[in-house]
Amino acid sequence: MELKEAIRKRRSIRLFDKTKKVTDAQLRELFELTSLSPSAYNLQPWKFIVVRDEKRKGVLRACGNNQAQVEDASAVIIVLAKLNPSEDVDEIISDRDKKGYFPSSEIKQNYIKIMKEIDTNEEIKAWAIKNAYLASATLMLAATDMGLATCPIEGFNPDCVIKNFRIPSNYFPTLLITLGYQLPDAKIPERLARKTFEKTVDFEQFRKKQA
Amino acid sequence: MELKEAIRKRRSIRLFDKTKKVTDAQLRELFELTSLSPSAYNLQPWKFIVVRDEKRKGVLRACGNNQAQVEDASAVIIVLAKLNPSEDVDEIISDRDKKGYFPSSEIKQNYIKIMKEIDTNEEIKAWAIKNAYLASATLMLAATDMGLATCPIEGFNPDCVIKNFRIPSNYFPTLLITLGYQLPDAKIPERLARKTFEKTVDFEQFRKKQA
Repeated sequence: MELKEAIRKRRSIRLFDKTKKVTDAQLRELFELTSLSPSAYNLQPWKFIVVRDEKRKGVLRACGNNQAQVEDASAVIIVLAKLNPSEDVDEIISDRDKKGYFPSSEIKQNYIKIMKEIDTNEEIKAWAIKNAYLASATLMLAATDMGLATCPIEGFNPDCVIKNFRIPSNYFPTLLITLGYQLPDAKIPERLARKTFEKTVDFEQFRKKQA
Repeated sequence: MELKEAIRKRRSIRLFDKTKKVTDAQLRELFELTSLSPSAYNLQPWKFIVVRDEKRKGVLRACGNNQAQVEDASAVIIVLAKLNPSEDVDEIISDRDKKGYFPSSEIKQNYIKIMKEIDTNEEIKAWAIKNAYLASATLMLAATDMGLATCPIEGFNPDCVIKNFRIPSNYFPTLLITLGYQLPDAKIPERLARKTFEKTVDFEQFRKKQA
């Protein structure tokens, strides 16, 4: 599917066909595309838990304001932000080195220093979440391309998810995404309006309009 | 361009052709596509400042760790998170109402209540930033589709941007994105490796692998 078509076609779908399942092969392709999202220093501070078991979806529904779509969707993805991305630094630096990304060993040493210290940055949680959201946006567009429907759910209780899905303290559940096939006879209302270009885009400084 | 191709093609490009400019028409298309990103309650808590003036790009470069790409790119987009999205509630509710999104007036009243109170939520800043990142990911993919190169820059001083670009207190600069044409003879190293499916995807609960 054309990218523009996917962007225009993507909607938050809450009515899923319970009989149609997302396959393992589809998940592989979906997450391979998702993995290509950008992240600072290529640290990829994200992880995903795919919940397909009926009983577990029920638990997740209870953590997520009892939304029926959580049980109706073929799968629900728990998007986790990784709070100790420095764990992966050696591998990432070695990859960067091999591919000629470091013009000097000084720059390389500086990179290593920043990346090794990143877990202790007071902004680490906010930063990991932001990067996980870039990946989530990619995921929802990729799903659209694959004929799948999604809905991002921000309204859920993270402690409930942490407890029931055994999330360790170095990860934080930041978003749920329902994934599946749209109910064939679902009546999807017209897309909600977006703010205009004039309202959302300024030039050169705040509130300055295009000449 | 196919969506999958755009996802695979998108790279963080820091070497821009200074002679090729992004046109007003391209910006319109880019932001129209960006606007179709999802946001909670369709509040669209984002705004963008397009900086193209050479002198102003110089100021922005000084706010952004002196990265040359900020001046070399045709435009730099300051992504703002909107911290008082409740301002737009009446318009959004009326659109939702007109299109039949409310099954009952009770649900409608509940929506209005939540949306009107959203600015006072202690998570409002984090929430607006997350939504602005969803839009930013869409923007970078849409730019790729249009033959443009981008690079997200998280390392900048928000206070410097606030001061120099007259950002009021109800907005927060959360990301810079350079935008332009890639330098034709730029030697772009091989894409950095991504973590494997096995490393990033668990099933049913943390650390449980696919059966």
